[in-house]
Amino acid sequence: MTKGLLITFEGPDGAGKSTVLDAIAHDLKERGYEVVVTREPGGVPIAEKIRDIILDPAHTSMDEKTELLLYIASRRQHLAERVLPALAAGKLVLMDRFIDSSVAYQGFGRGLDVEDIHWLNAYATDGLKPDLTLYFDIDVKEGLARIAKSKHRGADRLDQENVAWHERVRQGYLSILKQEPERVVKIDAGQPLLNVTAEASRCLDKKVSER
Amino acid sequence: MTKGLLITFEGPDGAGKSTVLDAIAHDLKERGYEVVVTREPGGVPIAEKIRDIILDPAHTSMDEKTELLLYIASRRQHLAERVLPALAAGKLVLMDRFIDSSVAYQGFGRGLDVEDIHWLNAYATDGLKPDLTLYFDIDVKEGLARIAKSKHRGADRLDQENVAWHERVRQGYLSILKQEPERVVKIDAGQPLLNVTAEASRCLDKKVSER
Repeated sequence: MTKGLLITFEGPDGAGKSTVLDAIAHDLKERGYEVVVTREPGGVPIAEKIRDIILDPAHTSMDEKTELLLYIASRRQHLAERVLPALAAGKLVLMDRFIDSSVAYQGFGRGLDVEDIHWLNAYATDGLKPDLTLYFDIDVKEGLARIAKSKHRGADRLDQENVAWHERVRQGYLSILKQEPERVVKIDAGQPLLNVTAEASRCLDKKVSER
Repeated sequence: MTKGLLITFEGPDGAGKSTVLDAIAHDLKERGYEVVVTREPGGVPIAEKIRDIILDPAHTSMDEKTELLLYIASRRQHLAERVLPALAAGKLVLMDRFIDSSVAYQGFGRGLDVEDIHWLNAYATDGLKPDLTLYFDIDVKEGLARIAKSKHRGADRLDQENVAWHERVRQGYLSILKQEPERVVKIDAGQPLLNVTAEASRCLDKKVSER
């Protein structure tokens, strides 16, 4: 059987990664591939319940380590219940956020120790890493402006954070890119969306054809 | 200001630890001590929501590492929001279950790696250990018989496990006792409840008077 592939989509909200993911998934399905589209945190019922706790705006007293541990717990359940079976069945798994989000947001963003986050990620995933990670890079202010313009998105707790925080998150992603250039590809998300989609699709097709 | 003390109550359900905890807390309060009684998992609203996910009998697909990570997340929040402030205020914190439950239940019981659990416990607690741990030891079959007899307790997911599992949990507690004899005191919970309470109370008074 053909080997499954795990492709993760990373970057800030507002960079268009979720839209691109949907477009690429649609295209791959039309071309006959078995595709699973999923997201973190969430993706399966137990993980969605954990997501609800993480994102509830009423939870202002949530400790930063608690938040990280909840993301990690949600990751584990999602992986065990959904991702690993799909990969074992040879499918293409397209995932909106994964291990790098914890490093960028909880590590660089909130200041939690990055080595600890690597340990927790490895614990939750049994060391599994994506075959390919598309990082959608965008200027922080432009990304935030796009979020503000989009009317259909409700505000959650994370959107209340400030620009400096998003700058740190971006530096986190750029640091991961530097450390793992073979896994992570940077996509310039400042381009028109059609171009972003085309560039992401090219990277993904290359990886799929290498299987 | 007098130093706060963290006293944990450990052991299987059915050993009477929660009943003894309540009796001792009542006694200490009557004697003028500032006492905080709390439990794991739970103790504060966010941790209680995590507890609900862990104990929901519908969650039969829960992965064992997910379960552990949820206990650890709940521990962190409870500690940050409730236990540390109480200790800082010089109070006596009596806690029903803490770090040793993870080692005994998820480590020895479910077979997860004990060193990993120590790492996770230390991460969640910033290395804090109880000043005293009372371990209520009871023959597994007698403990289970007591649970079956008590009519006011609803069955939760954990009660569906079998005797062999409870034997492994007991071995876990006995192993902790062997490794940390200065922190952990074994109480023979097979005695009549009044004697158990008296013995636990003596141990605790000794620790309180040493402050």
